[in-house]
Amino acid sequence: MIQVNENFLKLQAGYLFPEIGRRVRAFAAANPNAKIIRLGIGDVTEPLPPAIIQAMHKAVDDMASGETFKGYGPEQGYDFLINAIIENDYKSRGVSLDTDEVFVSDGSKCDTGNFQEILGVANRIAVTDPVYPVYVDTNVMAGRTGEYDQAKSQYGKIVYMPCNADNNFVPALPSEPVDIIYLCYPNNPTGAVATKAELAKWVAWAKANKAIILFDAAYESFISDPAIPHSIYEIDGAKDVAVEFRSYSKTAGFTGLRCAFTVVPKTVKAYTSSGKEVAINPIWSRRHTTKFNGASYISQAAAAAVYSPQGKKEVRQIIDIYMNNAAVIRKSLSALGYSVYGGVNAPYIWLKTPGGLTSWQFFDKLLGEINVVGTPGSGFGPSGEGYFRLSAFGKPENVIEAMERFKKLKF
Amino acid sequence: MIQVNENFLKLQAGYLFPEIGRRVRAFAAANPNAKIIRLGIGDVTEPLPPAIIQAMHKAVDDMASGETFKGYGPEQGYDFLINAIIENDYKSRGVSLDTDEVFVSDGSKCDTGNFQEILGVANRIAVTDPVYPVYVDTNVMAGRTGEYDQAKSQYGKIVYMPCNADNNFVPALPSEPVDIIYLCYPNNPTGAVATKAELAKWVAWAKANKAIILFDAAYESFISDPAIPHSIYEIDGAKDVAVEFRSYSKTAGFTGLRCAFTVVPKTVKAYTSSGKEVAINPIWSRRHTTKFNGASYISQAAAAAVYSPQGKKEVRQIIDIYMNNAAVIRKSLSALGYSVYGGVNAPYIWLKTPGGLTSWQFFDKLLGEINVVGTPGSGFGPSGEGYFRLSAFGKPENVIEAMERFKKLKF
Repeated sequence: MIQVNENFLKLQAGYLFPEIGRRVRAFAAANPNAKIIRLGIGDVTEPLPPAIIQAMHKAVDDMASGETFKGYGPEQGYDFLINAIIENDYKSRGVSLDTDEVFVSDGSKCDTGNFQEILGVANRIAVTDPVYPVYVDTNVMAGRTGEYDQAKSQYGKIVYMPCNADNNFVPALPSEPVDIIYLCYPNNPTGAVATKAELAKWVAWAKANKAIILFDAAYESFISDPAIPHSIYEIDGAKDVAVEFRSYSKTAGFTGLRCAFTVVPKTVKAYTSSGKEVAINPIWSRRHTTKFNGASYISQAAAAAVYSPQGKKEVRQIIDIYMNNAAVIRKSLSALGYSVYGGVNAPYIWLKTPGGLTSWQFFDKLLGEINVVGTPGSGFGPSGEGYFRLSAFGKPENVIEAMERFKKLKF
Repeated sequence: MIQVNENFLKLQAGYLFPEIGRRVRAFAAANPNAKIIRLGIGDVTEPLPPAIIQAMHKAVDDMASGETFKGYGPEQGYDFLINAIIENDYKSRGVSLDTDEVFVSDGSKCDTGNFQEILGVANRIAVTDPVYPVYVDTNVMAGRTGEYDQAKSQYGKIVYMPCNADNNFVPALPSEPVDIIYLCYPNNPTGAVATKAELAKWVAWAKANKAIILFDAAYESFISDPAIPHSIYEIDGAKDVAVEFRSYSKTAGFTGLRCAFTVVPKTVKAYTSSGKEVAINPIWSRRHTTKFNGASYISQAAAAAVYSPQGKKEVRQIIDIYMNNAAVIRKSLSALGYSVYGGVNAPYIWLKTPGGLTSWQFFDKLLGEINVVGTPGSGFGPSGEGYFRLSAFGKPENVIEAMERFKKLKF
């Protein structure tokens, strides 16, 4: 008799973004004339710049001729892209990588979700709270957690590391043994960043405890402070304990194109139950080549264009648009008396809900009174309760209008 | 201490296609003037036709303008593609499907590899022998098998169903209980097809035994016999027990573009350990939306163009090129006295190695004497020993030359 993977039945039905969508649709149906401004889901809004469009047209033409047609590419990605990644994203910051340490994929959601698969099911995981839900849900599916505790809004067996205004959104090192630590900097949803000194503490802890750090750097291109590391490998020793996830989705507006990559240094080790050391790079390679057939050639050609001189310039201009939005939000809300975090080195602004409102109460108030959509902090974990995320992705004129509307909120 | 998923350590290192690549590279290095003809890996060789190229240029232009830019799409795929799939691939053959039963993805390798994840680890699997290695390897990774037995060339706990000339490459129904049955028709590697009557037997068996059929129809567009079903849902009752995988890779030359889809009828059920019935459609939906972020918009636009009147015509012309290659191979090798199978409703020709040679001996002989590359049957499983796969993908002039060279093989 065919059995279901019962771990999937532990998952909570009310996933954050569908619930937001449901409430927005209901409001729009009841108020057809309302001009809703969406600063909720973190999706880019600017079209792709000319250098990338041009590279894609060329790649499409390559597919039209027998001489340049591309069938199956290497599952790990084309060398032209891997070499550009190593040169521009790593060598430029003093990090050396071999080509077989970089794995091109179709998205960081996939990679951060899939990576746990090559690690034992008995490993204990630690996540920051609030956190990107994919890290948690994929571990629930794998059976690495207990049941969901409705009262605590937490799954059993996961170590949640609270991040709030009291600790400046920097979690304390785990006080109990964990094996897999998910870190995301610049952080989604809080917009916080980690200094070199803070990351060095995590690397040292992971080494001492034979743990592995899964480091999500999907938002690194939004860092404006030159002292903040873009890669965990800027920390000495990180290549022994950390895997890094990068994406073109937010960096270069690729959410609809699908291209990302993961770095798995050959020096990162895991252990068998008998204590034998095993390099995880060849194991991830085996997983990646067996269950994946390479990212689209068109998307890889587009990603390579991000590193051309013109591509770099054009992508930077788009990031500047979003970061100007972030600055407008920060300034406007601060002037209105809100406690505002993030938005300087990240495209997310995290704010304390005013008047003791819960995250969802504030969501309903914003939608109902001023027709602005944001994301309730509690959707990212229990420590997100009382907070709210606004995204800097959006048309500047909409962001300015949203901020004008905030002045009209009634308390 | 971080533990590795030890199931990965059961995997055999010598995966088929890398080993072929190694031998071909070594031969080419030692024989730099040899003109090698590759009929090995099943990768398409014809460039994409005008209707698809045009649709991709338009999709690229959509990404260049704020009005038409596409960010995150629905993880399940755009409605414009899902509707075209239902209308053209299913309704036209008398099969009705709801839009939420079709899941667009970036490849059938991924889908056939990932699907087992939502099913319990204690389920017993059955595969045909020979078989596409991804079905087996992904179950090894998931822990659903025992260790590899070198003497038998088989993993423990898997039920292998031999397919050879004696049973006309149609496996017998399992004589022991199994829960997950992988079937691929038209078959890779044997090129065999299943009649409606044969598939009806499997559907009835699955119903009676509460098993699930994972049906890989990646090669359905190569069917020339009008009596052969293109979809398992042409069989009454299949919607209760079968999931179907489809791909544009071979159908329309998308190996470098990455687009495929999986059909999960809402009537397919699995069970909890306490015997409770659970529909698997919402569980796959949860998996797909949590671990995947949609196929590239450009690739989905290209896939939709496959269904336009012009697209259908152009894609058919390319399939005809490959199937003419298949006919040339069949005819030539039959005339030389080979026992030849497949190649009529599938792009693969499966032949008995002559003179009692093993699959690898014949591989080395072909490469060494006439510089033709094929795929050793034993690489697909123990029952593939003594067989050899030739692919119909290739330039017609190369296929004709390869057949000329076969005349020069010395025995």
